[in-house]
Amino acid sequence: MIKNSSTKDLKLTSNERLFLDASSIFKPKKYGNIKPNGFKIYTFNAGFKKKYDDLLVIIFDDIVSSINIYSKTSTPSAPIIWDKKNNEGKVRALIVNSGNANAHTGKEGLKLIDSYVNFLSKLINCDKKHILVSSTGVIGELFDPKAIINQLNKINNSKVSNLLDAAIAIMTTDTYPKISIDKVTIDNKRIKIYGIAKGSGMIQPNMGTMLAYIFIEANVSKILLKKLIKENIENTFNSISVDSDTSTSDTLILFSLKKIDVNLTTNNFKKLNNSLNKVMRDLSLQVIKDGEGVTKLIKANVFKCKSKKQAKNIAFSIVNSPLVKTAVAGEDANWGRIIMAIGKSGERIDQNKIKISFGKYIVCQNGSISKNFDTININKYMKRDIIEINVYLNIGYQNHTVYGNDLNYEYIRINADYRS
Amino acid sequence: MIKNSSTKDLKLTSNERLFLDASSIFKPKKYGNIKPNGFKIYTFNAGFKKKYDDLLVIIFDDIVSSINIYSKTSTPSAPIIWDKKNNEGKVRALIVNSGNANAHTGKEGLKLIDSYVNFLSKLINCDKKHILVSSTGVIGELFDPKAIINQLNKINNSKVSNLLDAAIAIMTTDTYPKISIDKVTIDNKRIKIYGIAKGSGMIQPNMGTMLAYIFIEANVSKILLKKLIKENIENTFNSISVDSDTSTSDTLILFSLKKIDVNLTTNNFKKLNNSLNKVMRDLSLQVIKDGEGVTKLIKANVFKCKSKKQAKNIAFSIVNSPLVKTAVAGEDANWGRIIMAIGKSGERIDQNKIKISFGKYIVCQNGSISKNFDTININKYMKRDIIEINVYLNIGYQNHTVYGNDLNYEYIRINADYRS
Repeated sequence: MIKNSSTKDLKLTSNERLFLDASSIFKPKKYGNIKPNGFKIYTFNAGFKKKYDDLLVIIFDDIVSSINIYSKTSTPSAPIIWDKKNNEGKVRALIVNSGNANAHTGKEGLKLIDSYVNFLSKLINCDKKHILVSSTGVIGELFDPKAIINQLNKINNSKVSNLLDAAIAIMTTDTYPKISIDKVTIDNKRIKIYGIAKGSGMIQPNMGTMLAYIFIEANVSKILLKKLIKENIENTFNSISVDSDTSTSDTLILFSLKKIDVNLTTNNFKKLNNSLNKVMRDLSLQVIKDGEGVTKLIKANVFKCKSKKQAKNIAFSIVNSPLVKTAVAGEDANWGRIIMAIGKSGERIDQNKIKISFGKYIVCQNGSISKNFDTININKYMKRDIIEINVYLNIGYQNHTVYGNDLNYEYIRINADYRS
Repeated sequence: MIKNSSTKDLKLTSNERLFLDASSIFKPKKYGNIKPNGFKIYTFNAGFKKKYDDLLVIIFDDIVSSINIYSKTSTPSAPIIWDKKNNEGKVRALIVNSGNANAHTGKEGLKLIDSYVNFLSKLINCDKKHILVSSTGVIGELFDPKAIINQLNKINNSKVSNLLDAAIAIMTTDTYPKISIDKVTIDNKRIKIYGIAKGSGMIQPNMGTMLAYIFIEANVSKILLKKLIKENIENTFNSISVDSDTSTSDTLILFSLKKIDVNLTTNNFKKLNNSLNKVMRDLSLQVIKDGEGVTKLIKANVFKCKSKKQAKNIAFSIVNSPLVKTAVAGEDANWGRIIMAIGKSGERIDQNKIKISFGKYIVCQNGSISKNFDTININKYMKRDIIEINVYLNIGYQNHTVYGNDLNYEYIRINADYRS
């Protein structure tokens, strides 16, 4: 948020204004102003963005463990290249800037990371390979590392920020900050999981958000951290799509803060896993609901397929189809476009077995329009904020759900004018 | 066009109005009002559309040869299922209706085709397997075959229409009719190739147009017809994309009218091939230029790739990216989104070897922004109607070009309100 000499109170007001200003109809109802246990948050304005802070620095109390997941793009940003080369899942600090992605910036882009990482490593006396970096924003433009260094230099004299400040500092075209917190009790110990995320455009499978950082208080081994990610990413961040575009910067980091020792028996692991799933699902839905200019959320449930892969492929074909997305924006139950999207997926199906419903209202089955097509109620249903499209292939036993959103004037406005 | 009791003159005026009204900046400069040699055209209003004719019937003088190419969708429309089952490339008549796609209509959809095909087969005394059918328009709605039969019944008393009327009768959301004609002289005989097409939404690889019919006057064997299609479809109809959606009804039929006998030696075949290429290229460009709400044509040239397939995949990734399309609409030289689109294609590349230019203006090379980035001229270039995006991967010797267009408010307006 705007740096202001008249401290705390105004800052809070500014946060609240941000929340109240959010144009998305799906904006969260409230935010927690939490200072987490196990790390300190610092946020600054480094000059990348005008309105809000654009630099997040997290300093962990000790070296923590992490699992780092990156975009599958073949044109990764410099921070992703840097992290992959230097970091092995032991982390003392995290530096994230928003407003400039430091992507497709060649050797210079890597050099500038080196210079601000070196500065911080000396300042907090840690190995530079224990510092993780991320950047999000415009692609292809270099920046002067001093922009970041000058702020890092203030850390020792800065007050510690909270989780909301952190979520704000990583925003780009997001209309609201994204936070999720869950608690789980294991062996009578209360364990918190904190998560923040950013992302509203360039959201697509294989890392559905641009940036997400999730912190588990418990001491979790590397093997179990990996298992936690594997169990939960497929149905959360890998099942959302705003515009079918994949960012050069997509990053998800799961940290174990090692603050609380617990015995992760099968049963305890399950508890922790469920709690993490809540946080990851919540964050990924916050991202999709903040899709650029979204007025409707599309939930595509594809049932009774031959394989999970087939269900996922068809679900994505539906939520990514511009014609389906514009029909939903126009509140038009144009189910023919869903038939089209199923067909273009290339999946082998039996057209005569397809059943489709909007919510509980069946529109077609047995290969043609439903005899009980309830125009009045279907049209009423299309006016809702969340549209559930249910597709039954009736050729197998596998299901998958993908979240997407509508395509409307606002998406065009935001993206045609992004840089102007 | 509107049927009007005061015949010819008004009809011409109506055609001309259509042409003048076309909102696309790319609309053709003129139309030929041609009555082709070898077949008779009849057009009617069967009640599917309000403004213009919506039923095209072509009766060939004799049985002609055809190669039929259909959508690769797994939810094909009833006419495609019908044609594939019944027609073997010998054709006496073609029936096309626009306004209702007869898609996902199950057995009833096939039955209704049967009934109007049977009617025509009796009327003109031909085998029903020699009648081809196509439909385009709304998916999933049955119609009464009498709508078509009642018009077919008028054929013997109707005046013969021209190629422009035919092109108009197959339009749906098209803003102008699409015709292309070329002539080639082989062995001192002048051979004409006539083509009509329709399509503006649901245009995507693997049959880039919804409907296209091309007629070669010369007598061409089945084998050579196939060869002609194979040589020309890849760089024309299979290299355009409006919205990445693939129709359930995509159809391209190439006819040999067998009116003129020529010896298709290697050299003569080449002449014919070139002429057909002109017509197919012209029609496919007319389709892409009429993409729903288009204000800009995007020509993505991808050079120096490891394979043709790689070049094509990346070119489509660029023209299909909503973020690239909106940037072009906003006249923003946001080349970072091209880097993103290259990256998301999943193709193996070397990011540091990429060179990108808008027209002749280089924006990046050797992995980062060009040192000679000419902001003023690039911004001027982005105001053009046709934007050429040149990508050099510099890892091989294969090239491919794909045509697409911008994504703007008008696309949303047309598609959100399609049925209302």
